[in-house]
Amino acid sequence: MAKTSVRRIILDVDTGIDDAWALIYALRAPTLDVLGITTGFGNADVDTTTRNTLAVTDLLQSRVPVYRGAVKPLCRPWDGPVTSYHGVNGLGNASVPDPLRPPENTEAVDFLHQVLTALPHEVTIVTLARLTNIARLLLYDPHVAPLISRLVIMGGAAFVPGNVTPVAEANIWGDPEAADLVFQSGIPITMVGLDVTHRARLTWDDLDRLDSSLPYAAMMRDATAFYLKAYERDHPEMQGWCPIHDPLAVAVAEDPSLVAVRRYPVRVEHAGRWTTGMTVVDARMGEQPHGIEVALDLNAPAFLHRFWDRVGIAPA
Amino acid sequence: MAKTSVRRIILDVDTGIDDAWALIYALRAPTLDVLGITTGFGNADVDTTTRNTLAVTDLLQSRVPVYRGAVKPLCRPWDGPVTSYHGVNGLGNASVPDPLRPPENTEAVDFLHQVLTALPHEVTIVTLARLTNIARLLLYDPHVAPLISRLVIMGGAAFVPGNVTPVAEANIWGDPEAADLVFQSGIPITMVGLDVTHRARLTWDDLDRLDSSLPYAAMMRDATAFYLKAYERDHPEMQGWCPIHDPLAVAVAEDPSLVAVRRYPVRVEHAGRWTTGMTVVDARMGEQPHGIEVALDLNAPAFLHRFWDRVGIAPA
Repeated sequence: MAKTSVRRIILDVDTGIDDAWALIYALRAPTLDVLGITTGFGNADVDTTTRNTLAVTDLLQSRVPVYRGAVKPLCRPWDGPVTSYHGVNGLGNASVPDPLRPPENTEAVDFLHQVLTALPHEVTIVTLARLTNIARLLLYDPHVAPLISRLVIMGGAAFVPGNVTPVAEANIWGDPEAADLVFQSGIPITMVGLDVTHRARLTWDDLDRLDSSLPYAAMMRDATAFYLKAYERDHPEMQGWCPIHDPLAVAVAEDPSLVAVRRYPVRVEHAGRWTTGMTVVDARMGEQPHGIEVALDLNAPAFLHRFWDRVGIAPA
Repeated sequence: MAKTSVRRIILDVDTGIDDAWALIYALRAPTLDVLGITTGFGNADVDTTTRNTLAVTDLLQSRVPVYRGAVKPLCRPWDGPVTSYHGVNGLGNASVPDPLRPPENTEAVDFLHQVLTALPHEVTIVTLARLTNIARLLLYDPHVAPLISRLVIMGGAAFVPGNVTPVAEANIWGDPEAADLVFQSGIPITMVGLDVTHRARLTWDDLDRLDSSLPYAAMMRDATAFYLKAYERDHPEMQGWCPIHDPLAVAVAEDPSLVAVRRYPVRVEHAGRWTTGMTVVDARMGEQPHGIEVALDLNAPAFLHRFWDRVGIAPA
């Protein structure tokens, strides 16, 4: 492997099937130093996502610290998970081993604050969940915003339809006030939304090529089969594949050249009747130098080959 | 000219420079029988748009009846016109002759109701303005909705940016409650929005080829020069051309084959913080048979050649 610098990252997750793939990818990446993982509600309640996160790290024999975070959106009640894609346990009802250890005693926001203060301008945060923890961090201490090297967000839909409403993607829709606060914070943001994640595809055939000797293989095979079947059931146009949103965001944090971005002002609608959760991209005047980096094109083969390599799927 | 059936239409206008071109196009079209013209606020106040409409018909030696309509949006105050594109008199501050006749005594909604009742399923309505008059008609008597053969709406933006906000087009933004009511009415609708009208372009060169012996030539040349300059000022990327939104909607009413449409459910946002006035197109599941016909592609040469022919611009 060519010599590359190691990037320090924090993952914010709501594990989740594609979150689990993203954790596996990140924790097996020699180029990424995962300083910690923060959790929140989303694909399941926060206790379940925290347990799932710990279970995945156990299977990887990783002792990366896991910090429990947001229980509900900033300003709204939480209606509970939509279980049709991630099952009732967040991992497609696959058998998940009991974690060998509890989460850290420190709350997610305190951990984020401590790390950013100790390592200013050195840490990339990758969010694979609602933006609630990051918004809570900014509300706790806005001075840390300039200390974040970059925030890579899995979320949003710029010029493609949403996946929860006609115009809203799930992570933004799930806490739109938090998302608007984060998008307006001045933090350098790369938005890895449905424009590109719908081109990051895992197939049944890929799943068949997963090395079954890996300790997480059985669990991830069962979980991903549930996820693939859910897409087949609800999306006649998506036969035989599912988007792996979250690993793509981690991959973009590792190697920004995987996507082509355009810089636009972005606001998040949180008061609409039909549009709440929409990432409202202002493309009227073309690119703006201080805009959000919106990923619009993906080198899918490069991503997929790296993903397969990292998680233990043999080449096609 | 090949034998074609004559289509009965009503134009709803807020004249307006491109409305004036649309009136000229429609009243000179042998294939269109313009039963009447209804007016409303928008590019100017309703008295001004009514006067402008009458003045254009005078210059065409037409006695088509003109009916004064909406003074303000359904549920909101009217903030007055944005004069930067249509001038303070709605016609780019060109010299507009005093009308030779007043508008009809009948109000616009009463006229619409009378015509639709007398000629059920035979009349196409083409709106070039806010949808306030049509919404008022539906609120006055919802039973006339099924009597409208088709409603061709100049308005909205499906998969392109807006022209008033990042996501809203002016006619929808100008009365979003009215627009949502109309889009939900069950009337067969063709939406001729910015997706296609920004490809319907009039250039300085076209304007130079306008037959100066026509009675409206001087006024329209002055008005359109104002319009072209406004676009040049505000849109560096649109040098030397302006969109002629309104004539395209009339042309589509005359000949639907000029555009390619897709049928999608459409709602209009009217409660958003950043998205009010957006036509929210649900494209998640592909076309829906009972959806709104959303024009997405245009045979621009065919349209332009017909437009030039109708209004007296020599071929390029």
